[in-house]
Amino acid sequence: MAKDLSISVLMDFYGGLLTDRQKEAMELYYNQDFSLAEIAENMDISRQGVRDFIKRGEKQLEDFEISLGLLKRFSEINTELETIKTGLAELEKLPLPPKAADLVGKLIESADKIENDL
Amino acid sequence: MAKDLSISVLMDFYGGLLTDRQKEAMELYYNQDFSLAEIAENMDISRQGVRDFIKRGEKQLEDFEISLGLLKRFSEINTELETIKTGLAELEKLPLPPKAADLVGKLIESADKIENDL
Repeated sequence: MAKDLSISVLMDFYGGLLTDRQKEAMELYYNQDFSLAEIAENMDISRQGVRDFIKRGEKQLEDFEISLGLLKRFSEINTELETIKTGLAELEKLPLPPKAADLVGKLIESADKIENDL
Repeated sequence: MAKDLSISVLMDFYGGLLTDRQKEAMELYYNQDFSLAEIAENMDISRQGVRDFIKRGEKQLEDFEISLGLLKRFSEINTELETIKTGLAELEKLPLPPKAADLVGKLIESADKIENDL
């Protein structure tokens, strides 16, 4: 079973729509790096049961993204934000009047804050 | 029936998870400003049926936001982005060396692009 890392990102977005058991299995598998056997023991179900939880969960997460596209929207924002951060870093290196330098410092803080919300 | 305008925003985020009929009723009510009677005629159901579609849809949209909180996340990004845009507008007004002024112009474009993605 190949581990698709984008699933971890989808869980961050849509995990709240999975059942608790499903979320638990996927959380252990994708974020805590447990093996199927370890999850099976932990959740007191068969290894096949774990596999089913995970496969079904992956499919649902992918379907949520097809229906809503919110990860895509966030990714686009993130790409633009990187452009802004690069630009601000260049700006910071240029000789600027003190008031402008001060403003640039504040803008860098705001851009960092957005990045933390993404 | 009071029309809650934040429902329109929630539809933009989570509308893809509603059924087609539900989405149709809510779209006509919230985005096209049809009356319940007009929607009933349009969809060939009773006025009470329309009301039920809308009430149930509102509840589901609110529940999606409680589970996922993606609108809240976008709103926080939007608030920070406004701060960045205000800062860039101030920066643009200051006397800057040409290279810096050029960079600020590009940053303003990027911030506008993010706003369009939000």
